[in-house]
Amino acid sequence: MSVTAAKGFRAAGIAAGIKENGNPDLALVVNDGPRRAAAGVFTSNRVKAAPVLWSEQVLRSGQVSAVVLNSGGANACTGPKGFQDTHATAEKAAEVLGRGAIEVAVCSTGLIGVLLPMDKLLPGVETAAAQLSEHGGEKAAIAIKTTDTVHKTSVVTKDGWTVGGMAKGAGMLAPGLATMLVVLTTDAGLDSEALDRALRAATKVTFDRVDSDGCMSTNDTVLLLASGAAGVTPEYEEFAEAVRQVCADLGQQLIRDAEGASKDIKVEVINAATEDDAVEVGRSIARNNLLKCAIHGEDPNWGRVLSAIGTTRAVFEPDRLGVAINGVWVCKNGGVGEDREKVDMRYREVHIVADLAAGSETATIWTNDLTADYVHENSAYSS
Amino acid sequence: MSVTAAKGFRAAGIAAGIKENGNPDLALVVNDGPRRAAAGVFTSNRVKAAPVLWSEQVLRSGQVSAVVLNSGGANACTGPKGFQDTHATAEKAAEVLGRGAIEVAVCSTGLIGVLLPMDKLLPGVETAAAQLSEHGGEKAAIAIKTTDTVHKTSVVTKDGWTVGGMAKGAGMLAPGLATMLVVLTTDAGLDSEALDRALRAATKVTFDRVDSDGCMSTNDTVLLLASGAAGVTPEYEEFAEAVRQVCADLGQQLIRDAEGASKDIKVEVINAATEDDAVEVGRSIARNNLLKCAIHGEDPNWGRVLSAIGTTRAVFEPDRLGVAINGVWVCKNGGVGEDREKVDMRYREVHIVADLAAGSETATIWTNDLTADYVHENSAYSS
Repeated sequence: MSVTAAKGFRAAGIAAGIKENGNPDLALVVNDGPRRAAAGVFTSNRVKAAPVLWSEQVLRSGQVSAVVLNSGGANACTGPKGFQDTHATAEKAAEVLGRGAIEVAVCSTGLIGVLLPMDKLLPGVETAAAQLSEHGGEKAAIAIKTTDTVHKTSVVTKDGWTVGGMAKGAGMLAPGLATMLVVLTTDAGLDSEALDRALRAATKVTFDRVDSDGCMSTNDTVLLLASGAAGVTPEYEEFAEAVRQVCADLGQQLIRDAEGASKDIKVEVINAATEDDAVEVGRSIARNNLLKCAIHGEDPNWGRVLSAIGTTRAVFEPDRLGVAINGVWVCKNGGVGEDREKVDMRYREVHIVADLAAGSETATIWTNDLTADYVHENSAYSS
Repeated sequence: MSVTAAKGFRAAGIAAGIKENGNPDLALVVNDGPRRAAAGVFTSNRVKAAPVLWSEQVLRSGQVSAVVLNSGGANACTGPKGFQDTHATAEKAAEVLGRGAIEVAVCSTGLIGVLLPMDKLLPGVETAAAQLSEHGGEKAAIAIKTTDTVHKTSVVTKDGWTVGGMAKGAGMLAPGLATMLVVLTTDAGLDSEALDRALRAATKVTFDRVDSDGCMSTNDTVLLLASGAAGVTPEYEEFAEAVRQVCADLGQQLIRDAEGASKDIKVEVINAATEDDAVEVGRSIARNNLLKCAIHGEDPNWGRVLSAIGTTRAVFEPDRLGVAINGVWVCKNGGVGEDREKVDMRYREVHIVADLAAGSETATIWTNDLTADYVHENSAYSS
């Protein structure tokens, strides 16, 4: 169902020939209204792809009629010609759909530093427009895959209204691995300010806390489009919670499909003095290559957790730190705790709890292990 | 020659039984004077091993008579008992050597969170003391190895005086991979203030810019001991340059022996607005796992360089950035430059130049590629 679960949306996914292997590579999502309110969050990387620079401009009006997404090329670091290509893509979609180009967002993903084959992309937009359907959400989700092994969709339906979405990649907004593209749709009737507030609140605790490999993409984009077609305006809090749920679900799907991963690691930081401290510590643990290798080897190497905590500016006393791995407190008071032989690490899910003993705030970061498959995939695939 | 190249020093390296495999694991370095001036720099990790906490106290007096170093156990995250063990080690060396314990520095490296076998270590100190020799530098360098495949020593001899040293590990001070331990000795007659100044200046541009995998150790220590036995007091600048040369040489040896690496990568940032900017950008590039995988695959993937630059706070304009890989400017003005097919990446040495076009400052960071061997070594070896 994906982006077409909510009323007022049509979508399509086709093979335009951008990818040399002939796989689907172009998606189109259209908001038929009556409302066209939208919000977006983008990569915080200062080297931004042309489609990000364009879509940031589009979102300034708070109105989005359509989104064109392509895989097979990131259109990043492509100079003025790259920006012209993004603009031409929006113009083509606007022309075919009878909308204004400034209401057409564009997202791209793939190799950096290569111009898109516009002779294939522009006809592809026409083809996709001709195939737009209220049942096209699944095909759209498939067309934006790159190294994804599965397509990712999620839907939450409430009392008369729906939030649905699709995602590709395995990463986060700030920073992100490969490119993460997400389009969320709703038929609830909210204005762009409420959408923006709900989207930022949701991404802050979901996609922003997915940190597969600490690398930040030039193309990360999350869009939320509202058609108002349900004729219902929910309470803000209820709506924001539905958006958070869809984002959390898609974020988990990204982690589960991260390149080369064999373990999904939940890093939970507890008893922090501030939420920022908890996030900083969680991120430091999640990015520690030595720890990520140890988890891959099913070795509950808590010393690497402590050395990662020690690199942060968070409030803590070294001799009060605690670490639990899969429920066993292998480190207590900064030293040896329960027998590490008790830790069962056979399963894909690994849960690390870091107790800072410095307050009552908490945060959770999701990451993966570091594997030889990750190395193989990223040394062989130019992305 | 190592730490015994300079006059006034004796050293020993023995197998005390700390390592279960029977390899050498205990080194002793003694300064016979007439001077015993010393300086030290330590890990900036806030979770510090017991020997670091102890040696920081020792260095406060600016006097070091002896250094005990063990491999086979880091004595980190070992609580009050771990600190007592370090203290007992210093006391034992002081007793055997007839010095004060507060003049005995201690360094440890190995697995975090395990107490040292003091029943083997303390007798080992006695054995090592009995074997002290003016030719013991090589054996000492061998005894501090952990995952090192070779031992590392370096000597610079000037007009009547010498700076020599030994190192283990592959990493840096802030941060560091595995544990880096370095002991430098000189027979030049300098006071502890001059030693401290020269050592900090040297480590800042050498070990601090070696970043194999971005992980910071709890045990990193670099010590510089001066005996004054040469009876010569060189000009400070000449001395500082000799210290820098030895540190630079040892730093290169660490990188060349980094765990699992198949490429040594020199990341040179040029035309930065400030040196801090250059270091921040260099470090960001050096830590980018996706780029490190690409280099492993001999793929001149400059897009990953740009995405790493984009995560920093350095002064730059995205459309003025340039990247050269092994002499080919594959990225110019933030976009496609020369043909990437021209880049020859067959050799172990890889040279990446990032041109920020924002000033005239420069910095170089040395790192390695990310390989399946790194993953295997660090998922199998509890360190």
